[in-house]
Amino acid sequence: MSGKNSKAEVVWHKGTCSANDRAESKRQNPACIWMTGLSASGKSTLANALEAYLHQAGFHTYLLDGDNVRHGLNRDLGMSDEDRTENIRRVSEVARLMADAGLIVITAFISPFCKDRNDARALFPEGEFYEVFVDTPLSVCESRDPKGMYKKAREGKIAQFTGIDSPYEAPSAAEVRIATENQTVEQCVEELAKVLMPKLKR
Amino acid sequence: MSGKNSKAEVVWHKGTCSANDRAESKRQNPACIWMTGLSASGKSTLANALEAYLHQAGFHTYLLDGDNVRHGLNRDLGMSDEDRTENIRRVSEVARLMADAGLIVITAFISPFCKDRNDARALFPEGEFYEVFVDTPLSVCESRDPKGMYKKAREGKIAQFTGIDSPYEAPSAAEVRIATENQTVEQCVEELAKVLMPKLKR
Repeated sequence: MSGKNSKAEVVWHKGTCSANDRAESKRQNPACIWMTGLSASGKSTLANALEAYLHQAGFHTYLLDGDNVRHGLNRDLGMSDEDRTENIRRVSEVARLMADAGLIVITAFISPFCKDRNDARALFPEGEFYEVFVDTPLSVCESRDPKGMYKKAREGKIAQFTGIDSPYEAPSAAEVRIATENQTVEQCVEELAKVLMPKLKR
Repeated sequence: MSGKNSKAEVVWHKGTCSANDRAESKRQNPACIWMTGLSASGKSTLANALEAYLHQAGFHTYLLDGDNVRHGLNRDLGMSDEDRTENIRRVSEVARLMADAGLIVITAFISPFCKDRNDARALFPEGEFYEVFVDTPLSVCESRDPKGMYKKAREGKIAQFTGIDSPYEAPSAAEVRIATENQTVEQCVEELAKVLMPKLKR
């Protein structure tokens, strides 16, 4: 059947209301702020705090989060390398649609593989994708362990856990690197905002 | 491995910026306006015209379209019944996230199966989902045939084409039914807007 599949027949349907129309009416530059880092590195905390900060500054934002997306769109996916890649692929496509809708999208996913993050970046126009490396050492993440996941992973009760028995490939050219270890959440957000705010204003 | 899979460990992460915060700042009620109908029934034309109308009226909208989603998020899916269901499932999850972001989302997909549309509806709070049946007879769609798809389907060059060798289950309780046959696009949009506008204003 696949030879007769009508997938190839699809043509791009251009809306009469463009990404630029939407962004203009919002007076902001759409963006994808892509947070990456180990489990318990502080991605979600930082993403939430950044969203609240930007919302107060009048920006229209949305947060895509490993936790909430996995309950819905990606609930069919597990934690194998293949499923992680598909998880990130779908999230990046949703972020692209949301940026096309004029939003500033913040994503908070471990997203351990360089290639997957680069594939995400490639979906966006130049200057619309900001990779934020939430750089917290494994030992610190493991001592935080808010959900007891590292403990379970060490005990072999969870398989393919990033940093334990599944690799994390640190970014080499992230737009921002945030060392969370010796800073408060507020300090981290200030640091991020300093870089991002001038880019997001229109 | 699946027994040790960490999928079940996921907990919902509540953002500090709520759907209500976003909708309030936009002065609109988020919604999903779900257009369903045969290929060439006029879904995309109507969806585009409705989006332009709502955008001019100051609403923040986004259009998810069978054509553009299939190039990105759902480019791994074909036209089998199973893949059609997964196509609609993902689209409805994305629409839910966008409504959560405060947007009025218009979707234009054939979405031939009642169950899939009902599953989509179930993702939304009461009163946030509007099923719009773009009710154009098969004979009319087939005579329009803008992309020559019906012709190819009749010749057996495309398989599993809705209305030809794949079923279309018409909605029995859509919020709006639009008969496109003897109306202009403008008249259809007026008819839709009359029903929707009072619900979308906040």
